[in-house]
Amino acid sequence: MRIGELSRVTGVSAPAIKYYLREGLLPPGELSSRNQASYGEGHVRRLKLIRALVDLGRVPIAALKQLLEDLDAPHPNLHRAIGRALMPGLQRDAASEAEMADAKKELQALIARRGWKVDCEQSPAFEQIASVIVAMRKLGAGDLLAGLDRYAATADEIARTDLSLVVTRGGADDIVFGAVVGTIIGDSLLQGLRRLAQESLSAQLFPEREDASASWRHS
Amino acid sequence: MRIGELSRVTGVSAPAIKYYLREGLLPPGELSSRNQASYGEGHVRRLKLIRALVDLGRVPIAALKQLLEDLDAPHPNLHRAIGRALMPGLQRDAASEAEMADAKKELQALIARRGWKVDCEQSPAFEQIASVIVAMRKLGAGDLLAGLDRYAATADEIARTDLSLVVTRGGADDIVFGAVVGTIIGDSLLQGLRRLAQESLSAQLFPEREDASASWRHS
Repeated sequence: MRIGELSRVTGVSAPAIKYYLREGLLPPGELSSRNQASYGEGHVRRLKLIRALVDLGRVPIAALKQLLEDLDAPHPNLHRAIGRALMPGLQRDAASEAEMADAKKELQALIARRGWKVDCEQSPAFEQIASVIVAMRKLGAGDLLAGLDRYAATADEIARTDLSLVVTRGGADDIVFGAVVGTIIGDSLLQGLRRLAQESLSAQLFPEREDASASWRHS
Repeated sequence: MRIGELSRVTGVSAPAIKYYLREGLLPPGELSSRNQASYGEGHVRRLKLIRALVDLGRVPIAALKQLLEDLDAPHPNLHRAIGRALMPGLQRDAASEAEMADAKKELQALIARRGWKVDCEQSPAFEQIASVIVAMRKLGAGDLLAGLDRYAATADEIARTDLSLVVTRGGADDIVFGAVVGTIIGDSLLQGLRRLAQESLSAQLFPEREDASASWRHS
Protein backbone atom coordinates (compact mmCIF):
# COMPACT_ATOMS: atom_id res chain seq x y z
CA MET A 1 0.00 0.00 0.00
CA ARG A 2 1.01 3.63 -0.46
CA ILE A 3 1.70 6.04 2.40
CA GLY A 4 -1.83 7.50 2.14
CA GLU A 5 -3.44 4.14 2.72
CA LEU A 6 -0.96 3.30 5.48
CA SER A 7 -2.05 6.52 7.16
CA ARG A 8 -5.73 5.68 6.74
CA VAL A 9 -5.36 2.13 8.04
CA THR A 10 -3.33 3.07 11.12
CA GLY A 11 -4.83 6.48 11.91
CA VAL A 12 -1.32 7.96 11.99
CA SER A 13 -0.92 11.13 9.91
CA ALA A 14 1.27 11.02 6.78
CA PRO A 15 3.68 13.68 8.17
CA ALA A 16 4.10 11.59 11.34
CA ILE A 17 4.80 8.49 9.23
CA LYS A 18 7.40 10.42 7.23
CA TYR A 19 8.97 11.58 10.47
CA TYR A 20 9.22 8.00 11.76
CA LEU A 21 10.74 6.91 8.44
CA ARG A 22 13.30 9.71 8.62
CA GLU A 23 14.18 8.85 12.22
CA GLY A 24 14.59 5.21 11.30
CA LEU A 25 11.81 4.10 13.67
CA LEU A 26 9.96 2.65 10.70
CA PRO A 27 11.86 0.63 8.07
CA PRO A 28 11.68 2.02 4.52
CA GLY A 29 9.01 0.68 2.18
CA GLU A 30 9.78 -1.45 -0.84
CA LEU A 31 10.46 0.66 -3.90
CA SER A 32 7.75 -0.24 -6.40
CA SER A 33 8.79 2.36 -8.95
CA ARG A 34 11.37 5.12 -9.10
CA ASN A 35 9.57 7.44 -6.69
CA GLN A 36 7.08 5.22 -5.01
CA ALA A 37 7.46 3.05 -1.98
CA SER A 38 5.06 0.34 -0.98
CA TYR A 39 4.26 -0.56 2.64
CA GLY A 40 2.99 -3.81 4.08
CA GLU A 41 1.47 -5.40 7.17
CA GLY A 42 4.78 -5.16 9.01
CA HIS A 43 4.60 -1.39 8.70
CA VAL A 44 1.03 -1.30 9.99
CA ARG A 45 2.04 -3.35 13.00
CA ARG A 46 5.14 -1.31 13.72
CA LEU A 47 3.21 1.96 13.48
CA LYS A 48 0.59 0.75 15.92
CA LEU A 49 3.34 -0.28 18.33
CA ILE A 50 5.04 3.12 18.03
CA ARG A 51 1.81 5.00 18.71
CA ALA A 52 0.92 2.80 21.64
CA LEU A 53 4.33 3.22 23.25
CA VAL A 54 4.34 6.98 22.74
CA ASP A 55 0.72 7.65 23.67
CA LEU A 56 0.10 5.13 26.40
CA GLY A 57 3.56 4.14 27.55
CA ARG A 58 4.92 7.69 27.52
CA VAL A 59 8.16 6.32 26.09
CA PRO A 60 10.25 9.28 24.83
CA ILE A 61 11.22 9.17 21.12
CA ALA A 62 14.95 8.70 21.86
CA ALA A 63 14.24 5.72 24.12
CA LEU A 64 11.77 4.38 21.58
CA LYS A 65 14.46 4.32 18.90
CA GLN A 66 16.72 2.32 21.19
CA LEU A 67 13.88 -0.05 22.10
CA LEU A 68 12.98 -0.74 18.45
CA GLU A 69 16.64 -1.28 17.56
CA ASP A 70 16.94 -3.71 20.44
CA LEU A 71 13.85 -5.57 19.29
CA ASP A 72 15.08 -5.70 15.69
CA ALA A 73 18.34 -7.38 16.72
CA PRO A 74 18.61 -11.04 15.61
CA HIS A 75 18.35 -12.33 19.18
CA PRO A 76 16.77 -9.53 21.11
CA ASN A 77 17.22 -9.46 24.84
CA LEU A 78 13.65 -8.55 25.60
CA HIS A 79 13.95 -7.82 29.30
CA ARG A 80 16.89 -5.55 28.82
CA ALA A 81 15.19 -3.77 25.94
CA ILE A 82 11.99 -3.16 27.88
CA GLY A 83 13.86 -2.19 31.01
CA ARG A 84 16.02 0.31 29.19
CA ALA A 85 13.02 2.00 27.58
CA LEU A 86 11.55 2.69 30.97
CA MET A 87 14.38 4.05 33.02
CA PRO A 88 13.06 7.36 34.25
CA GLY A 89 15.50 10.24 34.07
CA LEU A 90 16.87 9.60 37.50
CA GLN A 91 18.96 12.29 39.10
CA ARG A 92 21.88 9.96 39.54
CA ASP A 93 24.27 12.68 40.64
CA ALA A 94 22.05 13.28 43.66
CA ALA A 95 22.86 9.82 44.99
CA SER A 96 26.27 9.30 46.47
CA GLU A 97 28.25 6.20 45.59
CA ALA A 98 27.93 4.96 49.15
CA GLU A 99 24.16 5.35 49.24
CA MET A 100 23.78 3.52 45.94
CA ALA A 101 26.13 0.76 47.09
CA ASP A 102 24.05 0.29 50.26
CA ALA A 103 20.81 0.20 48.32
CA LYS A 104 22.21 -2.35 45.86
CA LYS A 105 23.41 -4.56 48.66
CA GLU A 106 19.95 -4.54 50.23
CA LEU A 107 18.32 -5.20 46.89
CA GLN A 108 20.64 -8.14 46.29
CA ALA A 109 19.61 -9.53 49.68
CA LEU A 110 15.95 -9.16 48.69
CA ILE A 111 16.61 -10.93 45.38
CA ALA A 112 18.29 -13.76 47.28
CA ARG A 113 15.36 -14.03 49.71
CA ARG A 114 12.96 -14.40 46.79
CA GLY A 115 15.27 -16.80 44.98
CA TRP A 116 15.22 -14.66 41.87
CA LYS A 117 17.67 -15.52 39.12
CA VAL A 118 18.60 -12.19 37.59
CA ASP A 119 21.72 -10.68 36.13
CA CYS A 120 21.87 -7.60 38.35
CA GLU A 121 24.73 -5.91 36.56
CA GLN A 122 22.98 -6.12 33.21
CA SER A 123 19.54 -5.21 34.46
CA PRO A 124 18.26 -1.64 34.08
CA ALA A 125 15.49 -2.54 36.54
CA PHE A 126 18.08 -3.31 39.21
CA GLU A 127 19.59 0.17 38.83
CA GLN A 128 16.15 1.74 38.77
CA ILE A 129 15.03 0.13 42.02
CA ALA A 130 18.28 1.03 43.78
CA SER A 131 17.85 4.66 42.70
CA VAL A 132 14.28 4.72 43.98
CA ILE A 133 15.41 3.30 47.33
CA VAL A 134 18.02 6.04 47.67
CA ALA A 135 15.54 8.71 46.64
CA MET A 136 12.90 7.57 49.11
CA ARG A 137 15.42 7.69 51.94
CA LYS A 138 16.57 11.15 50.97
CA LEU A 139 12.94 12.25 51.02
CA GLY A 140 12.48 10.97 54.55
CA ALA A 141 10.16 8.25 53.27
CA GLY A 142 12.52 5.36 53.94
CA ASP A 143 9.94 3.84 56.31
CA LEU A 144 7.81 2.98 53.25
CA LEU A 145 10.54 0.58 52.15
CA ALA A 146 9.40 -1.77 54.91
CA GLY A 147 6.95 -3.05 52.28
CA LEU A 148 9.68 -4.06 49.83
CA ASP A 149 9.43 -7.81 50.45
CA ARG A 150 5.65 -7.74 50.16
CA TYR A 151 5.84 -5.72 46.95
CA ALA A 152 8.37 -8.18 45.55
CA ALA A 153 6.02 -11.08 46.32
CA THR A 154 3.25 -9.30 44.40
CA ALA A 155 5.63 -8.65 41.52
CA ASP A 156 6.12 -12.41 41.30
CA GLU A 157 2.38 -12.96 40.91
CA ILE A 158 2.14 -10.24 38.28
CA ALA A 159 5.06 -11.71 36.34
CA ARG A 160 3.46 -15.15 36.47
CA THR A 161 0.29 -13.72 34.95
CA ASP A 162 2.34 -11.76 32.38
CA LEU A 163 4.25 -14.78 31.16
CA SER A 164 1.27 -17.13 31.14
CA LEU A 165 -0.60 -14.71 28.88
CA VAL A 166 2.28 -14.04 26.54
CA VAL A 167 3.51 -17.58 25.98
CA THR A 168 0.10 -18.68 24.69
CA ARG A 169 0.50 -16.31 21.75
CA GLY A 170 1.21 -17.74 18.33
CA GLY A 171 4.45 -16.86 16.58
CA ALA A 172 7.68 -15.39 17.83
CA ASP A 173 6.75 -11.91 16.62
CA ASP A 174 3.42 -12.10 18.43
CA ILE A 175 5.22 -13.01 21.61
CA VAL A 176 7.60 -10.05 21.34
CA PHE A 177 4.75 -7.71 20.54
CA GLY A 178 2.70 -9.07 23.43
CA ALA A 179 5.58 -8.81 25.88
CA VAL A 180 6.30 -5.20 24.95
CA VAL A 181 2.68 -4.06 24.91
CA GLY A 182 1.77 -6.09 27.96
CA THR A 183 4.68 -4.82 30.01
CA ILE A 184 4.91 -1.18 29.01
CA ILE A 185 1.24 -0.41 28.42
CA GLY A 186 0.33 -2.90 31.10
CA ASP A 187 2.11 -0.60 33.56
CA SER A 188 -0.63 2.00 32.97
CA LEU A 189 -3.22 -0.67 33.62
CA LEU A 190 -1.56 -1.79 36.86
CA GLN A 191 -1.15 1.81 38.01
CA GLY A 192 -4.84 2.43 37.45
CA LEU A 193 -5.90 -0.75 39.25
CA ARG A 194 -3.65 0.09 42.19
CA ARG A 195 -5.34 3.47 42.56
CA LEU A 196 -8.84 2.00 42.39
CA ALA A 197 -7.89 -0.59 45.01
CA GLN A 198 -6.41 2.13 47.25
CA GLU A 199 -9.56 4.22 46.97
CA SER A 200 -11.78 1.27 47.76
CA LEU A 201 -9.69 0.01 50.66
CA SER A 202 -9.49 3.43 52.22
CA ALA A 203 -13.30 3.72 51.98
CA GLN A 204 -13.61 0.37 53.79
CA LEU A 205 -11.06 1.15 56.48
CA PHE A 206 -12.52 4.54 57.24
CA PRO A 207 -16.24 4.18 56.60
CA GLU A 208 -17.07 7.03 58.96
CA ARG A 209 -15.53 9.54 56.59
CA GLU A 210 -17.93 11.13 54.18
CA ASP A 211 -15.12 11.76 51.80
CA ALA A 212 -13.36 8.46 52.17
CA SER A 213 -10.49 9.49 49.99
CA ALA A 214 -9.51 12.22 52.44
CA SER A 215 -9.01 9.56 55.07
CA TRP A 216 -5.32 9.16 54.47
CA ARG A 217 -4.85 12.72 55.50
CA HIS A 218 -7.18 12.88 58.43
CA SER A 219 -6.86 9.49 60.01
CA MET B 1 16.82 30.67 56.04
CA ARG B 2 17.70 32.60 52.89
CA ILE B 3 17.35 31.24 49.37
CA GLY B 4 21.05 30.32 49.23
CA GLU B 5 20.79 28.13 52.28
CA LEU B 6 17.54 26.63 51.04
CA SER B 7 19.39 25.69 47.87
CA ARG B 8 22.27 24.19 49.82
CA VAL B 9 20.02 22.17 52.12
CA THR B 10 17.84 20.75 49.35
CA GLY B 11 20.36 20.46 46.54
CA VAL B 12 18.01 22.41 44.25
CA SER B 13 19.69 25.30 42.42
CA ALA B 14 18.65 28.86 43.31
CA PRO B 15 17.36 29.56 39.74
CA ALA B 16 15.18 26.45 39.95
CA ILE B 17 13.83 27.57 43.33
CA LYS B 18 13.02 31.00 41.88
CA TYR B 19 11.26 29.32 38.97
CA TYR B 20 9.12 27.24 41.34
CA LEU B 21 8.30 30.39 43.34
CA ARG B 22 7.30 32.23 40.18
CA GLU B 23 5.15 29.32 39.02
CA GLY B 24 3.46 29.15 42.40
CA LEU B 25 4.66 25.60 43.06
CA LEU B 26 6.46 26.84 46.14
CA PRO B 27 4.71 29.29 48.50
CA PRO B 28 6.48 32.63 48.97
CA GLY B 29 8.82 32.99 51.93
CA GLU B 30 8.13 35.25 54.86
CA LEU B 31 9.38 38.78 54.28
CA SER B 32 11.98 39.40 56.95
CA SER B 33 12.96 42.80 55.60
CA ARG B 34 12.03 44.91 52.59
CA ASN B 35 13.89 42.81 50.06
CA GLN B 36 14.55 39.62 51.90
CA ALA B 37 12.40 36.55 52.24
CA SER B 38 12.95 33.82 54.76
CA TYR B 39 12.21 30.15 54.11
CA GLY B 40 11.44 27.38 56.57
CA GLU B 41 11.16 23.63 56.95
CA GLY B 42 7.93 23.62 54.96
CA HIS B 43 9.83 24.94 51.97
CA VAL B 44 12.53 22.29 52.32
CA ARG B 45 9.90 19.59 52.41
CA ARG B 46 7.94 20.97 49.47
CA LEU B 47 11.10 21.31 47.36
CA LYS B 48 12.08 17.72 48.03
CA LEU B 49 8.62 16.60 47.03
CA ILE B 50 8.74 18.63 43.80
CA ARG B 51 12.11 17.21 42.82
CA ALA B 52 11.07 13.67 43.61
CA LEU B 53 7.89 13.94 41.56
CA VAL B 54 9.67 15.53 38.61
CA ASP B 55 12.77 13.36 38.65
CA LEU B 56 11.42 10.00 39.71
CA GLY B 57 7.70 10.26 39.06
CA ARG B 58 8.11 11.95 35.68
CA VAL B 59 5.17 14.19 36.57
CA PRO B 60 5.05 17.08 34.05
CA ILE B 61 5.23 20.59 35.56
CA ALA B 62 1.65 21.48 34.57
CA ALA B 63 0.30 18.35 36.24
CA LEU B 64 2.55 18.99 39.23
CA LYS B 65 1.00 22.42 39.73
CA GLN B 66 -2.46 20.89 39.75
CA LEU B 67 -1.34 18.15 42.15
CA LEU B 68 0.16 20.61 44.62
CA GLU B 69 -2.94 22.82 44.45
CA ASP B 70 -5.08 19.77 45.12
CA LEU B 71 -2.94 18.81 48.09
CA ASP B 72 -3.02 22.36 49.48
CA ALA B 73 -6.82 22.43 49.51
CA PRO B 74 -8.34 22.38 53.03
CA HIS B 75 -9.73 18.85 52.56
CA PRO B 76 -7.70 17.35 49.76
CA ASN B 77 -9.12 14.42 47.90
CA LEU B 78 -5.90 12.49 47.80
CA HIS B 79 -6.89 9.72 45.43
CA ARG B 80 -8.25 12.11 42.88
CA ALA B 81 -5.19 14.34 43.16
CA ILE B 82 -2.76 11.46 42.70
CA GLY B 83 -4.83 9.94 39.91
CA ARG B 84 -5.04 13.19 38.02
CA ALA B 85 -1.29 13.74 38.18
CA LEU B 86 -0.71 10.42 36.51
CA MET B 87 -3.12 10.34 33.61
CA PRO B 88 -0.88 9.75 30.64
CA GLY B 89 -1.65 11.84 27.60
CA LEU B 90 -4.05 9.33 26.18
CA GLN B 91 -5.11 9.70 22.59
CA ARG B 92 -8.74 9.87 23.51
CA ASP B 93 -9.93 10.83 20.05
CA ALA B 94 -8.62 7.51 18.78
CA ALA B 95 -11.19 5.66 20.89
CA SER B 96 -14.75 5.73 19.70
CA GLU B 97 -17.56 6.40 22.16
CA ALA B 98 -18.85 2.87 21.70
CA GLU B 99 -15.47 1.27 22.40
CA MET B 100 -15.02 3.35 25.54
CA ALA B 101 -18.55 2.56 26.70
CA ASP B 102 -17.89 -1.18 26.27
CA ALA B 103 -14.60 -0.97 28.14
CA LYS B 104 -16.21 0.95 30.99
CA LYS B 105 -19.02 -1.56 31.28
CA GLU B 106 -16.50 -4.41 31.55
CA LEU B 107 -14.46 -2.50 34.07
CA GLN B 108 -17.55 -1.85 36.16
CA ALA B 109 -18.25 -5.59 36.12
CA LEU B 110 -14.69 -6.24 37.28
CA ILE B 111 -15.09 -3.69 40.08
CA ALA B 112 -18.31 -5.41 41.16
CA ARG B 113 -16.62 -8.85 41.13
CA ARG B 114 -13.91 -7.53 43.44
CA GLY B 115 -16.42 -5.71 45.64
CA TRP B 116 -14.55 -2.45 45.22
CA LYS B 117 -16.23 0.71 46.48
CA VAL B 118 -15.11 3.40 44.08
CA ASP B 119 -16.69 6.45 42.56
CA CYS B 120 -16.12 5.57 38.92
CA GLU B 121 -17.29 8.84 37.45
CA GLN B 122 -14.95 10.83 39.64
CA SER B 123 -11.96 8.56 39.30
CA PRO B 124 -9.19 9.39 36.82
CA ALA B 125 -7.93 5.83 37.27
CA PHE B 126 -11.23 4.47 35.97
CA GLU B 127 -10.88 6.51 32.76
CA GLN B 128 -7.24 5.52 32.46
CA ILE B 129 -7.92 1.80 32.67
CA ALA B 130 -10.80 2.01 30.19
CA SER B 131 -8.52 3.82 27.72
CA VAL B 132 -5.83 1.19 28.12
CA ILE B 133 -8.36 -1.58 27.50
CA VAL B 134 -9.49 0.11 24.27
CA ALA B 135 -5.90 0.71 23.18
CA MET B 136 -4.87 -2.90 23.81
CA ARG B 137 -7.77 -4.14 21.70
CA LYS B 138 -6.94 -1.77 18.86
CA LEU B 139 -3.38 -3.08 18.97
CA GLY B 140 -4.57 -6.65 18.59
CA ALA B 141 -3.42 -7.41 22.14
CA GLY B 142 -6.89 -7.82 23.61
CA ASP B 143 -6.04 -11.40 24.59
CA LEU B 144 -3.73 -10.02 27.28
CA LEU B 145 -6.80 -8.61 29.03
CA ALA B 146 -7.65 -12.15 30.10
CA GLY B 147 -5.38 -11.39 33.07
CA LEU B 148 -7.44 -8.42 34.25
CA ASP B 149 -9.04 -10.19 37.22
CA ARG B 150 -5.72 -11.58 38.37
CA TYR B 151 -4.07 -8.18 38.04
CA ALA B 152 -6.91 -6.63 40.03
CA ALA B 153 -6.39 -9.18 42.81
CA THR B 154 -2.71 -8.24 42.95
CA ALA B 155 -3.63 -4.55 43.03
CA ASP B 156 -5.63 -5.28 46.18
CA GLU B 157 -2.58 -6.75 47.85
CA ILE B 158 -0.44 -3.82 46.81
CA ALA B 159 -3.02 -1.34 48.10
CA ARG B 160 -3.19 -3.18 51.43
CA THR B 161 0.57 -2.85 51.79
CA ASP B 162 0.41 0.81 50.68
CA LEU B 163 -2.19 1.77 53.25
CA SER B 164 -0.68 -0.22 56.09
CA LEU B 165 2.62 1.60 55.60
CA VAL B 166 1.13 5.04 55.25
CA VAL B 167 -1.32 5.00 58.16
CA THR B 168 1.46 4.25 60.65
CA ARG B 169 3.00 7.62 59.86
CA GLY B 170 2.73 10.40 62.40
CA GLY B 171 0.87 13.57 61.54
CA ALA B 172 -1.59 14.38 58.78
CA ASP B 173 1.08 16.03 56.65
CA ASP B 174 3.32 12.99 56.97
CA ILE B 175 0.46 10.81 55.78
CA VAL B 176 -0.18 12.96 52.72
CA PHE B 177 3.51 13.09 51.93
CA GLY B 178 3.84 9.34 52.35
CA ALA B 179 0.80 8.62 50.19
CA VAL B 180 2.03 10.82 47.35
CA VAL B 181 5.63 9.60 47.44
CA GLY B 182 4.64 6.00 48.05
CA THR B 183 2.14 5.94 45.22
CA ILE B 184 3.84 7.99 42.53
CA ILE B 185 7.46 7.09 43.19
CA GLY B 186 6.37 3.68 44.35
CA ASP B 187 5.18 3.07 40.78
CA SER B 188 8.82 3.14 39.63
CA LEU B 189 9.66 0.65 42.34
CA LEU B 190 6.84 -1.69 41.36
CA GLN B 191 7.74 -1.41 37.67
CA GLY B 192 11.31 -2.37 38.46
CA LEU B 193 10.30 -5.31 40.65
CA ARG B 194 7.91 -6.56 37.96
CA ARG B 195 10.74 -6.61 35.41
CA LEU B 196 13.12 -8.43 37.74
CA ALA B 197 10.43 -11.01 38.49
CA GLN B 198 9.72 -11.45 34.77
CA GLU B 199 13.39 -11.97 34.02
CA SER B 200 13.77 -14.50 36.80
CA LEU B 201 10.62 -16.41 35.96
CA SER B 202 11.49 -16.63 32.32
CA ALA B 203 14.93 -18.01 33.27
CA GLN B 204 13.21 -20.68 35.39
CA LEU B 205 10.61 -21.59 32.80
CA PHE B 206 13.14 -21.88 29.99
CA PRO B 207 16.34 -23.03 31.65
CA GLU B 208 17.63 -24.54 28.41
CA ARG B 209 18.10 -21.12 26.87
CA GLU B 210 21.53 -19.69 27.29
CA ASP B 211 20.14 -16.20 27.09
CA ALA B 212 17.09 -16.76 29.21
CA SER B 213 15.69 -13.36 28.48
CA ALA B 214 15.37 -14.15 24.79
CA SER B 215 13.03 -16.98 25.69
CA TRP B 216 9.87 -14.96 25.25
CA ARG B 217 10.72 -14.53 21.64
CA HIS B 218 11.92 -17.99 20.83
CA SER B 219 9.68 -20.21 22.91
